[in-house]
Amino acid sequence: MSVVTRVLLDVLKPHDPSVLDLACALGNLGDYRVRVRVLEMDKKTETLEIEVAGADVDFEAIQTVIRDLGAALHSVDEVDVSGVTLAPDAE
Amino acid sequence: MSVVTRVLLDVLKPHDPSVLDLACALGNLGDYRVRVRVLEMDKKTETLEIEVAGADVDFEAIQTVIRDLGAALHSVDEVDVSGVTLAPDAE
Amino acid sequence: MSVVTRVLLDVLKPHDPSVLDLACALGNLGDYRVRVRVLEMDKKTETLEIEVAGADVDFEAIQTVIRDLGAALHSVDEVDVSGVTLAPDAE
Amino acid sequence: MSVVTRVLLDVLKPHDPSVLDLACALGNLGDYRVRVRVLEMDKKTETLEIEVAGADVDFEAIQTVIRDLGAALHSVDEVDVSGVTLAPDAE
Amino acid sequence: MSVVTRVLLDVLKPHDPSVLDLACALGNLGDYRVRVRVLEMDKKTETLEIEVAGADVDFEAIQTVIRDLGAALHSVDEVDVSGVTLAPDAE
Amino acid sequence: MSVVTRVLLDVLKPHDPSVLDLACALGNLGDYRVRVRVLEMDKKTETLEIEVAGADVDFEAIQTVIRDLGAALHSVDEVDVSGVTLAPDAE
Amino acid sequence: MSVVTRVLLDVLKPHDPSVLDLACALGNLGDYRVRVRVLEMDKKTETLEIEVAGADVDFEAIQTVIRDLGAALHSVDEVDVSGVTLAPDAE
Repeated sequence: MSVVTRVLLDVLKPHDPSVLDLACALGNLGDYRVRVRVLEMDKKTETLEIEVAGADVDFEAIQTVIRDLGAALHSVDEVDVSGVTLAPDAE
Repeated sequence: MSVVTRVLLDVLKPHDPSVLDLACALGNLGDYRVRVRVLEMDKKTETLEIEVAGADVDFEAIQTVIRDLGAALHSVDEVDVSGVTLAPDAE
Repeated sequence: MSVVTRVLLDVLKPHDPSVLDLACALGNLGDYRVRVRVLEMDKKTETLEIEVAGADVDFEAIQTVIRDLGAALHSVDEVDVSGVTLAPDAE
Repeated sequence: MSVVTRVLLDVLKPHDPSVLDLACALGNLGDYRVRVRVLEMDKKTETLEIEVAGADVDFEAIQTVIRDLGAALHSVDEVDVSGVTLAPDAE
Repeated sequence: MSVVTRVLLDVLKPHDPSVLDLACALGNLGDYRVRVRVLEMDKKTETLEIEVAGADVDFEAIQTVIRDLGAALHSVDEVDVSGVTLAPDAE
Repeated sequence: MSVVTRVLLDVLKPHDPSVLDLACALGNLGDYRVRVRVLEMDKKTETLEIEVAGADVDFEAIQTVIRDLGAALHSVDEVDVSGVTLAPDAE
Repeated sequence: MSVVTRVLLDVLKPHDPSVLDLACALGNLGDYRVRVRVLEMDKKTETLEIEVAGADVDFEAIQTVIRDLGAALHSVDEVDVSGVTLAPDAE
């Protein structure tokens, strides 16, 4: 079995919602640590680096939050995964 | 539920109030660690990097303090958020 | 006796499967920590740096997963191995 | 309530008093750790970076010591402050 | 008495044996941590940086393994040694 | 009260006494850790960076040792001082 | 009293003895940690950086070993010394 423990995302968003609202919406998903860095600000958009870490990160829920807030996931830049072996034939 | 644990802000302020007064006004908001760095000094203004960290940082109160002291919040450069799950249906 | 404790691989993959799927497929192999970094994105392919670490990493299984998912192992860039001596004549 | 826990200062001083005398005069103010770095030496003056850290740094006293020794505080480059909340209505 | 605790070697090898086989062959020598980095790949050869660390590294055995696998030890770049004094006249 | 806990000095010395003799002469002054780095070697002189650290470093004694050995203290580059408050009126 | 706890030396040696032999000869002197780095290889000579650390490093013995093995001590680049005060009048 595999759990995702960290993703690093490149995201483009309009000025609204704010960075804070987006970060909190991601934190609402679970027991995650979220860091959002603003890499670039243009007239209408902001390019963000978003890092979400946790014991079991739900990547699809993250994608949904980003999309629902009107932002676009440009790329997944890093993914950390932990394999968990339960018993020899548990998988 | 989400709590903000750290913000990194780009702020422009006139020479008065002093960096020290601004830092202390932010520290007065709660059990925060505040670091203010002066990035640039011009004739009438100073560009500051302000970092406020704590277990539960009240971003709106920070905005109010900055505005009330006559300074301007140019941008939010980084936000750290911790998600807190209480119980499966606690949110 | 030798066990492989970490490999660092340079891998080329088509856009599908996703980075996440590839990382999880590698995590499914055992009690491993997997980190995938996207180094370059082209129209049809992505160049990845994949690090797999664990107490006893099965390199052949990793190769099989990479191949089965339609990706190509370009090179093995680093290998960590631990020698384990059991008894003077155990080897 | 806020306490200042560290200041980083840019100071210009004549050759006399010595760096050592200035550092000790600042240390005499309280239970502080003081570091003075000489950044530049000119014919008549020295540019110093002075860092004073402690549990509760008295910035006004520092200013007074610097002025009384014939040196000039050019700028406050960094300030660290800790907010201390005693009780909900303690402030 | 002296024991070698770490060597850093510059090695040239043909593509066969693989980096993994060479690393494991070195790990088989004892209770060592072996790290092999591929510094350069040419048509017929690979330039490797090999680090072998352990409580008592047998350098001659390492040389033999490298030679027996058809690789060439170009240079010894770093050597760590621990002196061990047993008793005033034990040496 | 203030105690000096570290000084970083720029010293010029003739080739004789040796770096080792100078370092040991400074170590003889007290329970200090002394590090001497040779920054530059000329025909007749050596430029040294000397760091002396301890719980209570006697700077005048250091100056005397340097002078007595025929070396010249060019500049004091850094000074660390600890303020020690004993009792409210202890100073 | 002063003890030398670390020296960093610049040494030139012919190809024979090997780096390993030189390192072990230095380790034989006492309870030292020895690190030898090859900085440059020429046709007939190698330039080495040799670091010897220990609780009480015998610099003269190191010089003797280097000389006896046909190598030349070019310069002493760093020396660490610890001052040890036994009793007020113990020195």
